[in-house]
Amino acid sequence: MKKILLIIAGLAMLTASAGAQELRNFNFGGARQIVSPEIAGDSTTFRLSADYATVVTLYGSWLPGYGDRIPMVKGEGGVWSVTIETPDPEIYTYNFFVDGVSVNDPQNYMVQRDGTRYLNMLLVPGERSENYFESSQRGTVSYKWYDSELLGLNRRLTVYTPYGYETSKAKYPVLYLLHGGGGDEEAWTSMGRAAQILDNLIEKGLAEPMIVVMPNGNAGQQAACTMGLSVKEFPRTEANANLYVTSLVKEIIPYIEKNYRVIAKPEARAIAGLSMGGGHTISATTLFPGTFDYICPMSCGVSESDHLDADLQGIKKAGYKLYWIGCGTADFAMPGSEVLDEALTRNGMEHTFFTSDGGHEWKNWRLYLNTFARLLFK
Amino acid sequence: MKKILLIIAGLAMLTASAGAQELRNFNFGGARQIVSPEIAGDSTTFRLSADYATVVTLYGSWLPGYGDRIPMVKGEGGVWSVTIETPDPEIYTYNFFVDGVSVNDPQNYMVQRDGTRYLNMLLVPGERSENYFESSQRGTVSYKWYDSELLGLNRRLTVYTPYGYETSKAKYPVLYLLHGGGGDEEAWTSMGRAAQILDNLIEKGLAEPMIVVMPNGNAGQQAACTMGLSVKEFPRTEANANLYVTSLVKEIIPYIEKNYRVIAKPEARAIAGLSMGGGHTISATTLFPGTFDYICPMSCGVSESDHLDADLQGIKKAGYKLYWIGCGTADFAMPGSEVLDEALTRNGMEHTFFTSDGGHEWKNWRLYLNTFARLLFK
Repeated sequence: MKKILLIIAGLAMLTASAGAQELRNFNFGGARQIVSPEIAGDSTTFRLSADYATVVTLYGSWLPGYGDRIPMVKGEGGVWSVTIETPDPEIYTYNFFVDGVSVNDPQNYMVQRDGTRYLNMLLVPGERSENYFESSQRGTVSYKWYDSELLGLNRRLTVYTPYGYETSKAKYPVLYLLHGGGGDEEAWTSMGRAAQILDNLIEKGLAEPMIVVMPNGNAGQQAACTMGLSVKEFPRTEANANLYVTSLVKEIIPYIEKNYRVIAKPEARAIAGLSMGGGHTISATTLFPGTFDYICPMSCGVSESDHLDADLQGIKKAGYKLYWIGCGTADFAMPGSEVLDEALTRNGMEHTFFTSDGGHEWKNWRLYLNTFARLLFK
Repeated sequence: MKKILLIIAGLAMLTASAGAQELRNFNFGGARQIVSPEIAGDSTTFRLSADYATVVTLYGSWLPGYGDRIPMVKGEGGVWSVTIETPDPEIYTYNFFVDGVSVNDPQNYMVQRDGTRYLNMLLVPGERSENYFESSQRGTVSYKWYDSELLGLNRRLTVYTPYGYETSKAKYPVLYLLHGGGGDEEAWTSMGRAAQILDNLIEKGLAEPMIVVMPNGNAGQQAACTMGLSVKEFPRTEANANLYVTSLVKEIIPYIEKNYRVIAKPEARAIAGLSMGGGHTISATTLFPGTFDYICPMSCGVSESDHLDADLQGIKKAGYKLYWIGCGTADFAMPGSEVLDEALTRNGMEHTFFTSDGGHEWKNWRLYLNTFARLLFK
């Protein structure tokens, strides 16, 4: 083996030197020595090297309002810092403001993209967040392209196949999991931790092994963050209103059922979505009753209308196994969720109305997936 | 359809209101009206809203040196800007410095992660970069987990399967494509644009349809940017020196050949890598001659040693179809590449030594993949 070691030693030197060069521009005054964020039990410290800055503040998603910035104090070597009480176990996002400009934490490479924004993550471990971390048996996440004739676009979707899918011969049920406005086909695997939640639940025997399909719900968008792809405009006309939802049922479902080992029956199909995706969930089940036996709109609701009861009666008549609504008590979608809850009751339809603290935010949508996924396909 | 429209209308209002709330914190003074970067033919303008900043500069990877920051000028409404001559067609990274702190461009959601850093992308279209954009027939990118008994870890790798793989019954050749120091299993699909390059080359008939496997070459790392996963330390001992490369040949290749429709023969296996991954390429082909018929180390070289000729004779004796070296003329790895080039010549081994302007950087590694991929499996 000695002969190989000689070659390797030469390369290790090159590599080390490359690393140093690449980092030189982005780390001043030993910035790599700084630790941020640092969770030490009940207290958490954030640090940023900014020797020439005048005002540095911190915003985090655990704070009650967007305006509630925490001032940071300049210390030795131009490092600004602040120590806060560690928030309850969850995944939070945060960012600094340096002289009025939003800045990510250069010491923390854990980042989530929310629409067009990139925000650092603060991961507080605990019972509530335990299924958001990696389990030991992990499924596969794939980004696939399919043709939508209805939308006239080749489009990308994300597919989670559970641990063991490749070596099994079994057929699996499918959850169609839809994002909200501003999101895309990467939202649920990034901010929603969908793969980790399913991995954990399945490994612990709390959920059935299932495939999760996460399409892009922006009808004119081929894919998130891609180059050279046109965005198609679909004016808000009556003819266009249900194009995406129709494509979901008439194109995406057949594509998945052709390309994966899937149980192609209503009792093996679930649909869930947040906000706009909750609207898609309601539209898809209203327009195509009997397609999905499991229906889970989150942070979304309906208006009272002449046709609401008729819509729900259509679903009732076609049959379903679970109608599960999730909404935060401070969510602006709560009134609409209550209208839906009341309408389901009025129409004699068994359902669950699950509420939790907080508003229109990912900590709730992760919690809801972690909750209703246990009820599917059982 | 009218009844559905009523529901949708209610939801559209909720969605619009959500979008406004979510963005409020991050956009001041109409920052969403700002366009950055704006490519207008020969000139490109960068803009940043930073009313309270004192000094704002721009750094971009098209600049000759890391210290070459471009000053920006404060204009109306606190918007800083600078117009430069549009660099040659390529993908560049850039960032702002606000009062000494590195800041990403909030108007540009095109971002690449390079190790622990996130940098904005500037995409200049043209002949050199045309294969880095989306083609119309696109393959699938999957993130999969496999067990390495040798490393004692469950690890993640990235697999590209070409357009048509799912519906075909054909078996495919495989390129094992390795990243450099500081990289991980996402480097080639993010910074390297590997999926787009292969999609374009295959669609144009310039490359054979192939599977591309991009493992994580940091032996102790389970995966990039994951939570709750331990990083294992492998001390630099003789016993550990070739653990990863051995795992690549003895574990990853069998895993791929078991789970994909693959031609499991040396003439259908290629190995290529940059920098540290070039070292892995050289080690793997030296330790396991005859495994790969296509060998492409990039930006990496060897030292003269007593055993270099014997190592290369081993490869020559086992046989190969392509030995292709790529290196930038300003790359610090050039001397080592020259040693390798000379040693191959001295040993009577047919090979290509492809050089290009520039140094140890992604614009070269994309160019090399875009070049040698056309030569594989032919």
